[in-house]
Amino acid sequence: MNKRKLGRGVAVVGAGMSKYGVRTGVSNREMFVEAFKHMMASVDRGVDPKDIEANYVGCCGAWNWESQAGIGKWCTDWAGLVPIPSTTVDNACASASVAIRQGIIGIASGLYDIVLAGGVEKMSTLPTNETTLVLATGADMAWETYAGFTFPGLYATMATAYMNEYGTTSEDLMAVAIKNHDNGVLNPMAQFGQTIRDVMNARIAKAKEKGQPVPSWADEMEFLHDSAFNPVVAWPLKLFDCCPITDGAACVLLVAEEIAKDFTDTPIYIIGTGQASGGALHDRESLTSIPAAQIAARQAYEMAGVSPQDIKIAEVHDCFTIAEVMAISDIGFFKPGKEAATAAAEGKTHRDGVKPINTSGGLKSKGHPVGATGAGMVVEIFEQMKGHAGPRQVPIDANLTLTHNVGAHGTTVVVQIYERR
Amino acid sequence: MNKRKLGRGVAVVGAGMSKYGVRTGVSNREMFVEAFKHMMASVDRGVDPKDIEANYVGCCGAWNWESQAGIGKWCTDWAGLVPIPSTTVDNACASASVAIRQGIIGIASGLYDIVLAGGVEKMSTLPTNETTLVLATGADMAWETYAGFTFPGLYATMATAYMNEYGTTSEDLMAVAIKNHDNGVLNPMAQFGQTIRDVMNARIAKAKEKGQPVPSWADEMEFLHDSAFNPVVAWPLKLFDCCPITDGAACVLLVAEEIAKDFTDTPIYIIGTGQASGGALHDRESLTSIPAAQIAARQAYEMAGVSPQDIKIAEVHDCFTIAEVMAISDIGFFKPGKEAATAAAEGKTHRDGVKPINTSGGLKSKGHPVGATGAGMVVEIFEQMKGHAGPRQVPIDANLTLTHNVGAHGTTVVVQIYERR
Repeated sequence: MNKRKLGRGVAVVGAGMSKYGVRTGVSNREMFVEAFKHMMASVDRGVDPKDIEANYVGCCGAWNWESQAGIGKWCTDWAGLVPIPSTTVDNACASASVAIRQGIIGIASGLYDIVLAGGVEKMSTLPTNETTLVLATGADMAWETYAGFTFPGLYATMATAYMNEYGTTSEDLMAVAIKNHDNGVLNPMAQFGQTIRDVMNARIAKAKEKGQPVPSWADEMEFLHDSAFNPVVAWPLKLFDCCPITDGAACVLLVAEEIAKDFTDTPIYIIGTGQASGGALHDRESLTSIPAAQIAARQAYEMAGVSPQDIKIAEVHDCFTIAEVMAISDIGFFKPGKEAATAAAEGKTHRDGVKPINTSGGLKSKGHPVGATGAGMVVEIFEQMKGHAGPRQVPIDANLTLTHNVGAHGTTVVVQIYERR
Repeated sequence: MNKRKLGRGVAVVGAGMSKYGVRTGVSNREMFVEAFKHMMASVDRGVDPKDIEANYVGCCGAWNWESQAGIGKWCTDWAGLVPIPSTTVDNACASASVAIRQGIIGIASGLYDIVLAGGVEKMSTLPTNETTLVLATGADMAWETYAGFTFPGLYATMATAYMNEYGTTSEDLMAVAIKNHDNGVLNPMAQFGQTIRDVMNARIAKAKEKGQPVPSWADEMEFLHDSAFNPVVAWPLKLFDCCPITDGAACVLLVAEEIAKDFTDTPIYIIGTGQASGGALHDRESLTSIPAAQIAARQAYEMAGVSPQDIKIAEVHDCFTIAEVMAISDIGFFKPGKEAATAAAEGKTHRDGVKPINTSGGLKSKGHPVGATGAGMVVEIFEQMKGHAGPRQVPIDANLTLTHNVGAHGTTVVVQIYERR
């Protein structure tokens, strides 16, 4: 698509997030302020808030979950940043990545030098069934939602096609969930403080304690795949294939490349950015990949001048387990089909694997506050690249990384590539 | 705020809109396609849709009025432009101006050369009382909407303060409405096909016809100010002080300055852009001006290197009559108070006045499809500057013009300045 370079280089010099989870009694703007403070504390040599020139905020559904449209300006207000320009972006679950991309473009244009960008989402105010309907407004009202589709159904359609085409199993998918929960439990900002393994091990321990027949790990996996403990949400996707409903906010500080070293000795340069659109599911030639992701990835790789093999770690969009499988082939890390589908089961995408994926816990375990998710991905990339990821820190030098963020079922995809020089 | 120039110049080479009004049975994306076709036909030497590289779409409430969030990507899809990046912007009633500003920034950044930008809003699907509540989500949920405020009330508060501070009268305000309806009736795309004068004259004619005592024009004005024909909506604002509820779409084609003459001999260059944010009403020192408008205007004038006196005509945000009065002083055309409040009554802002304002009919008569409004303003500026405004064409050479678009009650304001060289 677009091979052009940006007019000016841009770097991330700060990144922060609120605690993700069910945040009762805390509004979007309050979570944004938490994320803003966390971000401000992450800037090695600090930044004067008065020097921030614009704020881009992603959000999908505050109009419904808290009766607040155009939330960005209120985040800007409560962060004490009025009267800087504030723009609210709604590209479904890719909103924060689109917001960050606008920030990058704003700096590249010469209009700004220092830009705040991120996202928010408060989702827990409505019952889950209503929240599912709010989310469904991100799909196509003309051909999908009016026909009864919600996102679990849309992704289940893709999972069914994937299984049919490649022989992928529920166990392959569950390995993605288990891996991401193993990572997320090491992330203090993540929604879940427990792994799927923990739950299974607790069952084994309990059986031992009670002197009952002690189930094997294989028994536990079978239980996990075929019991009311992990019920079907939309076949073949079960509860543990689905990300949770999450409240949270995240943001990053973007600065022009030529001033980046004023803020830190280790700026994280954004060397590639791609964004593409896709139509409704019925309009696609294949249901086993997301064309917009492939296009966005190609744009990002071309701009960065690197290839998938060069990328050390990535945060990708795992709203459902099948989404991570499609993601890691759409961005060229693994071949579509068996190679992508078994990457987690074979340990390739684990923290100590050849290509660590979603070291943060991903949407699956860290949580998926939809409008904030893309910014939360950059927080993880930033911490890993700075060596600040604590027990999640990957054992390799993560000097070249990638984020992949999907809006809806691939109607927007943003791929960005980051370099620490 | 920001005195910097953009990295590259940008011009408008096409502008189009759908018919504004109550558009039963037509969706946002369908109206966008209408506007897109109208825009495409306005490009003097044409443009290949394949050359359009991105689409920015403003929208405030499609999530509610048609159960569709992130509408921009569906507009992009139905205009046949997938997979170009598509970004949906929600800055309340300034959404389309913010979208256009993002398009300008995108070209200035070097990432794009040719960008589509505009907005949509389908508002007539709900009863007026519910639509008023949807709109109210654009105000501050923490301090305004939860306390019962809706937009007529917020603007009525400003109108009351204005009357108290400057002695402005309901008659001063009504002169704004009468002027804008006089303009709008000459605009084939406007919502109303009748002026307030027409209605009053019809009453006079009817009285004559029936042999009843013939009311004078002064009688009619008194009737207009004090009868159930023009009831109070939120005192002192009456029905005819308020813009209608409108369905509609509008968009513009932006190109890099160096290629603008490939598309037309008369590109409309965007030489100044400003955007600022404001907080809730209770946080402001004065209720009789909008600080974000003053800041955005200053940014735009400084970037353009021109002063208010240089501007020939402007489209300003007249969601309520008081809004136009505040607008023309915030952007420096008239002194706040008596001079601004009586500009319409004294003919200064009429089509043949010293400073024609809202020659399109404005939000008041052309209509106010909230997410599209800023783009609709540029359509009028474009047509006036190209000499294509037909019976609305101003009698002066409109070579330097301005748009002023307010989000909510001044929480976002975008001011842009256009030049035909």
